[in-house]
Amino acid sequence: MSSAATRPTGEDDLWSVDQHLEDILSTVQPLEPIELQLLDAQGCVLVEDVTVPVSLPPFDNSSMDGYAVRIADVEGASEEFPAALEVVGDVAAGADDPVRVGPGQAARIMTGAPLPPGAEAVVPVEWTDGGLGEGPAGGMRARSLAPEDAGGQVRVHRPVEARAHVRAEGSDVKAGDRALEAGTILGPSQIALLAAIGRGTVRVRPRPRVVVVSTGSELVQPGEQLGRGRIYDSNSFALTAAARDAGAIAYRVGAVADDAETLRSTIEDQLIRADLLVTTGGVSVGAYDVVKEALADIGDEDVPGGGIEFRKLAMQPGKPQGFGSIGPDHTPLLALPGNPVSSYVSFELFARPAIRALMGLTDLHRPVVRATLTADKALRSPKGRRQFLRGRYADGEVTPVGGAGSHLVAALAHADALIVVPEDMESVEPGTEVDVVPLG
Amino acid sequence: MSSAATRPTGEDDLWSVDQHLEDILSTVQPLEPIELQLLDAQGCVLVEDVTVPVSLPPFDNSSMDGYAVRIADVEGASEEFPAALEVVGDVAAGADDPVRVGPGQAARIMTGAPLPPGAEAVVPVEWTDGGLGEGPAGGMRARSLAPEDAGGQVRVHRPVEARAHVRAEGSDVKAGDRALEAGTILGPSQIALLAAIGRGTVRVRPRPRVVVVSTGSELVQPGEQLGRGRIYDSNSFALTAAARDAGAIAYRVGAVADDAETLRSTIEDQLIRADLLVTTGGVSVGAYDVVKEALADIGDEDVPGGGIEFRKLAMQPGKPQGFGSIGPDHTPLLALPGNPVSSYVSFELFARPAIRALMGLTDLHRPVVRATLTADKALRSPKGRRQFLRGRYADGEVTPVGGAGSHLVAALAHADALIVVPEDMESVEPGTEVDVVPLG
Repeated sequence: MSSAATRPTGEDDLWSVDQHLEDILSTVQPLEPIELQLLDAQGCVLVEDVTVPVSLPPFDNSSMDGYAVRIADVEGASEEFPAALEVVGDVAAGADDPVRVGPGQAARIMTGAPLPPGAEAVVPVEWTDGGLGEGPAGGMRARSLAPEDAGGQVRVHRPVEARAHVRAEGSDVKAGDRALEAGTILGPSQIALLAAIGRGTVRVRPRPRVVVVSTGSELVQPGEQLGRGRIYDSNSFALTAAARDAGAIAYRVGAVADDAETLRSTIEDQLIRADLLVTTGGVSVGAYDVVKEALADIGDEDVPGGGIEFRKLAMQPGKPQGFGSIGPDHTPLLALPGNPVSSYVSFELFARPAIRALMGLTDLHRPVVRATLTADKALRSPKGRRQFLRGRYADGEVTPVGGAGSHLVAALAHADALIVVPEDMESVEPGTEVDVVPLG
Repeated sequence: MSSAATRPTGEDDLWSVDQHLEDILSTVQPLEPIELQLLDAQGCVLVEDVTVPVSLPPFDNSSMDGYAVRIADVEGASEEFPAALEVVGDVAAGADDPVRVGPGQAARIMTGAPLPPGAEAVVPVEWTDGGLGEGPAGGMRARSLAPEDAGGQVRVHRPVEARAHVRAEGSDVKAGDRALEAGTILGPSQIALLAAIGRGTVRVRPRPRVVVVSTGSELVQPGEQLGRGRIYDSNSFALTAAARDAGAIAYRVGAVADDAETLRSTIEDQLIRADLLVTTGGVSVGAYDVVKEALADIGDEDVPGGGIEFRKLAMQPGKPQGFGSIGPDHTPLLALPGNPVSSYVSFELFARPAIRALMGLTDLHRPVVRATLTADKALRSPKGRRQFLRGRYADGEVTPVGGAGSHLVAALAHADALIVVPEDMESVEPGTEVDVVPLG
């Protein structure tokens, strides 16, 4: 994304892609944090520095199933000359008052169980006869089947060093340590740590609720009968799915007919559940472009930057765009064009970063890679426009899929990347290196 | 993942990681397909070849807001010598019976509206005076504000070729074409195409429902008071989150105490909503390892390969593992070890591919990359075991985070990759190239 942000001077001038994105992102603020249950916070950004309240592990415990012993009692032990110890009981995981181990004694101990008082190390069960007097044990017999194994005698075949097979209190993290920093994205292993230190809830920025409204009297719901002159609504489905992919909780509103009053009341209705509104269609220069018509006077003109502004952008597809904020909470709204490819590309360029900004993420954009153009002939791009073509990307090469037409949904569905042709290029020869944005 | 799959011969022999994974995947079958609403099918695998029922676009339509004209009428037109045409009406998107365009006439037409009979091309509004008689128009006035613009006279400033700014019927896809092949994963742009061709529902393999049960009498729910000898349950949270990340609908069951009967009845209860059961803990050689005890006789031994088998694997962490199927529907079950890092690594290695196999995906594994080890000293790995260490990976280098201890949750939370040390290596010097699995 090379060209500098420029603000047009004349009314008919085009806005640059970068300037439009910058204006959107300067308006979108991260959502206010809320306290969420751990699993509801998955994928969200932490807004607090989390400190460890109790050391992990909270107490010295065994890392093996075996016998808790005193070092001196097993010194020099071997299979030929085992150390015979009196088993004084079991120490299971969760034991709150473990048996004491005196000289000549051992306690049978389970992984995770607290090291009992008097014991200095753990001997794995495989280094003993497991109390059965029949050579090295493969494991313990279940307590429920052989309760007598918690007593009797055990023969230990190997010596151990002090603290062997013992996980020390605080050896993972210590009370007062920083567990996680504000700004961390909570994935499974961060959730593991929060749970391990006892946090049932955590303060994060929530996922934004995105309401998607498509407009157009020609639109028919998929699955219904298509009348003459009609097409199926695909934008509301595609953008709802894309909003979810971007991390949002997305609500799809069925297509709204080209009537300004209906659209206005639909949008006002939806404000209650929207952190971001996305509309498609009705933003161009036609006489029935009701999004433009309906939103011109719905905006909150009392706040600086409020209201919806409609612009022409130096890009293809996606020249007509609207953006601003509406309603009592100054909810951001993106009015995207209606052609399916235009709306999809516009969503990628503007709505996805906006959703990520609402989440409090700092890394807003998909990575851009360089790839060699593989094509039969040169690509043509209109002068002064940044063009986004659909392509397939693999192993450092990218191949265009379909043409530049913004109605080519099938080609879009078979692409996995956008090819970016900068404003100053009117032609790209095969073999040229180009910027590519891999999708998904 | 280099070593060949080998089946152990003796009872105490270790199973290879590859053999265990192979056995799991040979038992897990893709879920039966169901018909889902488009947005419910997001991320799922299509099981039908989808054919286009009606061409896209379904009719010739305008790609611009402008005027539908006859070629001969605008031949040689210029701003100085415009062609003046009688405007016979509007053609809006969705119009089912558009006005006819005769010689010397034009219809005002909107993007997406059907090309009216008699018209041969569309002139963009910017190439006309928009009916206002004041030089080139920037756009149309809204129909609601200026209904008279649907009549009167328009001056056209440029000629057009036949079919200019017309999207031909079927120029995207034609009736009978293959829209999407079975096996396609449905993302936003595939959903766009399905909607565009009128599909309200689609046949896919559903997301698997994964039930996660942790076991251990020492486990306390995060947020509650920690008693002596107790620790917080983190596994059920981490693996529920990881199961979701892998594409599953995940249900977390609270920790179950070390009692075989309780565990058995909990698992039997959960079978109704499980396509895969994942337990943690209780699979080693201790006397309180109730998963082993409870599942030994719950299995469906009447089917070949049924029942739960417990094994020792040649890996660290994660040596003790259980796997099989249970209940009337032969629901697959993975019994993972209980140490937090062991359960997490085991989930990555075995549960994640199993979930993806249930979804009908063919690409089951995370990509493995090569990276240079950056470390202060050589890594040690037990002979004959495949070791998975936690690390941070960036720019072709990987740095270990924390040690090999399977209780080190904090280190896990600060890692973003697994470092794989193969079975035949006991030491890895800094600067060596190693296999790395980037996570998330």
